[in-house]
Formats: sequence, structure tokens, C-alpha cells
Amino acid sequence: MEIAKTIQSVRSLVKAARSKSKKIGLVPTMGALHIGHISLIEAAVKQCDFVVVSIFVNPTQFGPGEDFEKYPRPLDADLKICRKTGVDVVFVPTQEQMYPAENLTWVNVEKLTELLCGQSRPIHFRGVTTVCAKLFNIVAPDVAFFGRKDAQQAIVVRRMAADLNMPLEIVICPTVREPNGLAVSSRNKYLTEEQKKDATLIYKSLQKCREMIDDGTTDSETIIAEMRKILSQAPSIEIEYISIVDAETLHNLDKIAGKALAAVAVQIGPARLIDNILMDASKK
Amino acid sequence: MEIAKTIQSVRSLVKAARSKSKKIGLVPTMGALHIGHISLIEAAVKQCDFVVVSIFVNPTQFGPGEDFEKYPRPLDADLKICRKTGVDVVFVPTQEQMYPAENLTWVNVEKLTELLCGQSRPIHFRGVTTVCAKLFNIVAPDVAFFGRKDAQQAIVVRRMAADLNMPLEIVICPTVREPNGLAVSSRNKYLTEEQKKDATLIYKSLQKCREMIDDGTTDSETIIAEMRKILSQAPSIEIEYISIVDAETLHNLDKIAGKALAAVAVQIGPARLIDNILMDASKK
Repeated sequence: MEIAKTIQSVRSLVKAARSKSKKIGLVPTMGALHIGHISLIEAAVKQCDFVVVSIFVNPTQFGPGEDFEKYPRPLDADLKICRKTGVDVVFVPTQEQMYPAENLTWVNVEKLTELLCGQSRPIHFRGVTTVCAKLFNIVAPDVAFFGRKDAQQAIVVRRMAADLNMPLEIVICPTVREPNGLAVSSRNKYLTEEQKKDATLIYKSLQKCREMIDDGTTDSETIIAEMRKILSQAPSIEIEYISIVDAETLHNLDKIAGKALAAVAVQIGPARLIDNILMDASKK
Repeated sequence: MEIAKTIQSVRSLVKAARSKSKKIGLVPTMGALHIGHISLIEAAVKQCDFVVVSIFVNPTQFGPGEDFEKYPRPLDADLKICRKTGVDVVFVPTQEQMYPAENLTWVNVEKLTELLCGQSRPIHFRGVTTVCAKLFNIVAPDVAFFGRKDAQQAIVVRRMAADLNMPLEIVICPTVREPNGLAVSSRNKYLTEEQKKDATLIYKSLQKCREMIDDGTTDSETIIAEMRKILSQAPSIEIEYISIVDAETLHNLDKIAGKALAAVAVQIGPARLIDNILMDASKK
């Protein structure tokens, strides 16, 4: 496994692989790799011949007062995981490599980024799409892998790639969960054991949503009220939003029909956690 | 010469050329090709092994009330020029090819686009950078060629490519002028003979600027007053701006030093015309 610290070095490693007609896969991460990331890497190893994992805690996607400084950076453990999972190159650029001058250029996806998490994190997705555009231009992958846990991010990145004719495929992999249902996230590390237990209510509320839809409920308000009840069982949980939206436009659905995304964002102690499930109400 | 009408077809033509290790050049145009464009194509043919000219009147860079509808579209004449100059592929996409769905994704370069022409054309550069990002992703050129006549555009596109790590070189070619000094532009076609004569005052004012700087004047205000006098000789000329700016940041220079750009925008009858000269005040 190679560790590339510069744009030039990752480019030359990818170029050599491409010259052998290898299919290039990219898993963009902020490090602090967990079983969710591992599932993305495994998908990349399976679907591609040459896998690049980028590790970069991207400052432009953190708002003021968010957790950029304290975001975990366990590089040695991350590299060990990459080695074990069959990664070919880990790209670990410095901030100076990625943002050598004042960044004036932003890639922004309108509308989709103004809803759900975009309401409390107004600059977040602009930072994500900009750094993804940069990484795609640096690595030039044939396929890039994202997790369904960050559903809005995946939808936004896929839309960016389509709108800008980026010559790559975006693959969205299933959310990986703890045995108790909690979606795996680097930010779970911020939680105490008690808070982790409370956090399992997030997925419980989403399961309730699925059950109610399966049982024929189509009224979002009724379902959201039930989900709110479940989340309210833990006083540590501060609800940011509970939304049932069209899985493509992210617009709120009053009546559930077709592909719907149920999405939840909460604050538990120091951690802002999100989770979601995708449902097809037309298939019952 | 091949004429590609779809993204897929231009991609497969470029792919075949690339597989033969050919260096790919792109000249992005809106058609209505004139000797300015021809000079860009000639530079591309000289520097590259495989030259793509794109012809697309991009709607997203025209503001409301601008000349999108009446912009000239002499396709047969354009293709003839491309054939004569040794172009390999002309990419002529439809609007549906370039914008199949509502475009939600914008590439925007801040600050540089808010000055000079950006003040009267607030969405113009966002449209330019977005369509250039799309064209670069579609064609994947090694080099793209732009004209110095649109100095701000060239500076903005170059900054976009650098900020987003686009894997290509941006080459900026000299402004081509009529024997009387008028910068060649597709929009000159909108002018009567009388107005064309008046339009020669634009370059005369820029020459005056260069002379004064060569003679030791460093005060922008003094120079701009002289330039205004020249432009005011023709009552048909409505001045939009006369600016002397830093050639990199585009900020107004009170005292001229280093690389400076003198830029003029005027309205003459139905045509909005721009021109500029680049000067290095440190080399005298």
C-alpha cells in the first residue's frame, strides 16, 4: 500500500494504474475509519481494480462552532485498516495541499442543500461538494463510494456529478449499524455509554416509521408524531428534525407515496447524529 | 473532421485519440467564429495533437434582457472554418444534451466575478464557469484555450481550474484586432458602419493609457479621465466602466504598479463591447 501525501504523487500512482487499464475506485473519507467505511472500501475492492482512500478532514464543510478541531484523527489506526482491507493508495493531503490559497471557487448544489441538514448547516454541503469536486479532479476515479447514512450528502454529490457531467459513477452503499441498530458514525465516539443507549432510539423511531407505512399509514404527520414520541423517551435527545421527504427532491411529503426518505437529526450531548431509511411506498 | 452532437460521441472520439497518447486541446466557443477564434484554434493545433472545438450558445451565462436569442448562430460557416483550420472534432451539443434537467449545480468563483463586468452581469460568470466545468468534464482536454479579449473570463476560468484541481492547462491567447484596432468580437456584427468607427475609440483609449503609463503617469484617476475624454468623442458610446486594476485580484489600483489590467466596457447602439490591455508597470 502506498501513502500519498501530495496531489502529484497520488496522480502519478493512479496514472500508472490507469495505464494498465485498471478500474479506479475512490472512497473519500475524513478518516476515523469504522465498519461503515470498511464496508465502502470492501465494495470498492470488489468493484474496482485499484482503490484509493482519501483521508482529509475538510475544513470548508464545518461551520463556525462545529467540531472541526476535535474531529478524531487516528491516522495510524486508519492506515492499518486500509492495509488490511486491500487499499492500494491512501491519499492523506495536508490542508496546504488541498487549499494552498484562499479558496474562491465553490461548487454548490441549490435546493437539495437547503433542506434537512442544510437548514442548520448552511455552508456544509457547499464544502462537501467543493472538496469532492477537487478529489474527483485529483484522483479521476471511475467510481466513487459514499454511505447511505449520509443520505442527503449522497444525493447531493450524485446530483453534482450528473449536472457537471463528471465522468464517474457514484455508488451509494447501505448504512452499517451496531447490533443495537445505532448507525455507525465517527461522531458516536463523542457519546457516553448512557447517551449511546439513548441514541438507539433514533433507529427505533425509523423502524416505527417503516412499520406504520407497511401497515398502510400514509399521513406523514401521524407517523412523525409517533417517531417524536419515541425520541422523547430520552431527555438527552434534542430533536433537530424528523422529516419524511421525496427521495429525489427532498421535499416534504404530506402523503407518503413512491420513494420516500425518512430522516432524523438529533443532538445528544456533544454529538449531532443523523440517520435515515429509504422506503418504497409503492411496493407493499 | 467529425461532428459530434452528443456527449457520448465526443467522449468516445476523445477516448480513441487519448488511447494513441495524443495531447487533447479544447477551444470552447459560442460559435459565430471569427479571426479571434481562429487564432485560438491555430494555437490549439500547434500545441496539441487532437483539437476539439465546442460550439454552444450557453443560456446560463446570459442575463434576462441580454442577447441570448439574437446571438448569431451561423453553423455552416463555423464548420467550414473548423474544417479549414484542422480541427479534429466539432462538438455541437443541443441544449437538451447540456442541460437535460433543471441545473441545480453551479460552479462559482467569488470576488473576481463581482468586479468589472460582474457588476452589470451578476450571473454571467457563474454561467461561464459552470459550462466550462461541464465541457472540461465532457472533453477532458489537456489544454483549453481562451482569448485575452475576455480578460476577466480568462482569469476567472484559470482560477476555477486551479482551485478545483482540474487536470488541465488554461492557455490565454492575445486579443486579435481589426487593422483599425477594434478588438474582434462576434458582437461587432450588431454595429452599423458608423458605430464600428466609433468603436475604434475603445482601443484608442487603451493605447492612451499605455502611453501615459510609459511616460511615467502612475495615478489611475488622471489616466482614466483622459480615457473618458477619448471615449466621449462619440456620442453613441455609453461608458459602463473604465478601470485600471491589479491583473490578478482585479482590485482597482489607485497608483499603478506591477501587472495592471486596463479594462473598458461600453454600450454602442445594440452592442455591449469590452476590451482591455495588460501592462507591466514594473518593466519600463
